[in-house]
Amino acid sequence: MTDEVSTAGAYVTAGAEFTRDDRYIATRITADGRDGYPVEAGRYRLVVSRACPWASRAVIVRRLLGLEDALPMAVAGPTHDRRSWTFDLDPGGVDPVLGIPRLQDAYFARFPGYSRGITVPAIVDVATGEVVTNDYAQMTLDLETEWAALHRPGAPDLYPEHLRPEIDAVARDVFRDVNNGVYRCGFAGSQDAYDSAYRRLFTRLDWLSERLAGQRYLVGDTITEADVRLFTTLARFDAVYHGHFKCNRDKLTEMPVLWAYARDLFQTPGFGDTVDFDHIKRHYYVVHEDINPTRIVPQGPDLRGWLTPHGREALGGRPFGDGSPPGPVPEQDRVPVEHTAAAMAG
Amino acid sequence: MTDEVSTAGAYVTAGAEFTRDDRYIATRITADGRDGYPVEAGRYRLVVSRACPWASRAVIVRRLLGLEDALPMAVAGPTHDRRSWTFDLDPGGVDPVLGIPRLQDAYFARFPGYSRGITVPAIVDVATGEVVTNDYAQMTLDLETEWAALHRPGAPDLYPEHLRPEIDAVARDVFRDVNNGVYRCGFAGSQDAYDSAYRRLFTRLDWLSERLAGQRYLVGDTITEADVRLFTTLARFDAVYHGHFKCNRDKLTEMPVLWAYARDLFQTPGFGDTVDFDHIKRHYYVVHEDINPTRIVPQGPDLRGWLTPHGREALGGRPFGDGSPPGPVPEQDRVPVEHTAAAMAG
Repeated sequence: MTDEVSTAGAYVTAGAEFTRDDRYIATRITADGRDGYPVEAGRYRLVVSRACPWASRAVIVRRLLGLEDALPMAVAGPTHDRRSWTFDLDPGGVDPVLGIPRLQDAYFARFPGYSRGITVPAIVDVATGEVVTNDYAQMTLDLETEWAALHRPGAPDLYPEHLRPEIDAVARDVFRDVNNGVYRCGFAGSQDAYDSAYRRLFTRLDWLSERLAGQRYLVGDTITEADVRLFTTLARFDAVYHGHFKCNRDKLTEMPVLWAYARDLFQTPGFGDTVDFDHIKRHYYVVHEDINPTRIVPQGPDLRGWLTPHGREALGGRPFGDGSPPGPVPEQDRVPVEHTAAAMAG
Repeated sequence: MTDEVSTAGAYVTAGAEFTRDDRYIATRITADGRDGYPVEAGRYRLVVSRACPWASRAVIVRRLLGLEDALPMAVAGPTHDRRSWTFDLDPGGVDPVLGIPRLQDAYFARFPGYSRGITVPAIVDVATGEVVTNDYAQMTLDLETEWAALHRPGAPDLYPEHLRPEIDAVARDVFRDVNNGVYRCGFAGSQDAYDSAYRRLFTRLDWLSERLAGQRYLVGDTITEADVRLFTTLARFDAVYHGHFKCNRDKLTEMPVLWAYARDLFQTPGFGDTVDFDHIKRHYYVVHEDINPTRIVPQGPDLRGWLTPHGREALGGRPFGDGSPPGPVPEQDRVPVEHTAAAMAG
């Protein structure tokens, strides 16, 4: 999660807008290895939290592209303290491959005294135990392009060359107003900052509803990176952003086009099967103590609606283009059944 | 509002359930004046907050029975500090009749050093400036029975003698699980206390949905005290309890029977025309700083749905029995148009 946890453990700065620290580690893993980190099956470990929308982009893209064996994944626990993400779900509280209890250990291994956010997603070089990158936006693009030699047969092209300008433009607006917009609502330090973020958020959601009313996917007629980026915010909308972040003009379930679009993706292999609603809810409500001091996690909402028919097939589209859907989720990457939409009646 | 504000200004006690202090001033205003306070037109002043569900019972009943002239009303501002309700909406911040800036002045006039909650609704004896009672539950029953000689022609019987046992029984369950249940969710000091209150709340709402599926009103075929008591909680459900108090299995708008029932009442003269959504939202989000430290008030939800057709006429029923609806709201009691459902698009 790219939440910045300040030394005060606070997300809200009184009187101020929420500003995301976007200085990530710019090192890239590339086919030619020009930054010293060549693409190589089994060399790296992707560290994520299933709570985090930014990390979830990488989780989805890795699965859609069939990179599970080439890039194994470590899942941090949903809650954390000021020292950030821990491997408390693993036996002994230590990641079995990296041998560390806290993600910060991989950051410090490369950058002693690293002072910015210890964020997921992060990719760690297993042999040295050093973090390579936490630049979530570049990370999925690189998985889609630089890692192409390791994609599964039938992997979709999530970032088709001729659509890149449009994908980038849509993603930029969606980032500003939606992906980051919900945080600007929730962590606003003044009524004005909140009001302004709220207006931009719902204006953009209305714009998205119009755009998606007549076309199945955001850009072109297949699933692309733009859909992945919007999906991870929509998946969290009713579960956390609606109440916790006060993004409450409507629930997602009350915006018919976006709700059908989101369910369509959710029910597509590679999307919903990566979503852990228990981690999502516990993370936000427990970690953001300055907006939820009791740390009580709501029982609602009833999330079973995610599994209902969406009717978007009628719009046509070819979800995977000339490719095919991913197969079943590998055993070690499965979301516990009690954390899935089917189990979350509220 | 019968929220108890402790000296620490806290509503939540860590590790504990929320317990409502139900020790109210038991003095009654009666036809025979046996407590020293006889029913008398123009002698008393009803002090309310339109934010408060308990005070709003009295606001609705007063209007249904046509007691506006006999019992004039003072409206406190929606927010308050630890010294409780103030007349900050009035010129000079002083109630024009009582001549006091704070409701506590009327409490202290009768009980120097009064140490329990300074709550609304309260009835004040104008000549002495002393509070008579703040016992909200007895207050509406007394308006319905003891004040009968001052009711308007055509006033409905909100507490018919032959239905009292059933009204009392329904009201008891609704109080425990719903009226006070939402507070037990919102002010829970532990996850267990919250979980338990949440389960009871939605179990009772499901029970109410079943009961109201085939009958228009809660008890008998006319509006009674039982409907007034349920209504004031339902009116606040999506605006505040859903998010702020984590009563979020469903929005009221997602519970079709209850939502139609609530709209039916809302659109009945005497109910919706007393509801000030601006006061409701600002009160809860600004005053309960220990569960909303930023004091930011959400823009949502879109409340215009309160004005949509409900279809409950098909169930029959005679809203006012042998009586008639109240006339237009007197000028001095009107809710500002910008605080009404029609103006709250979110």
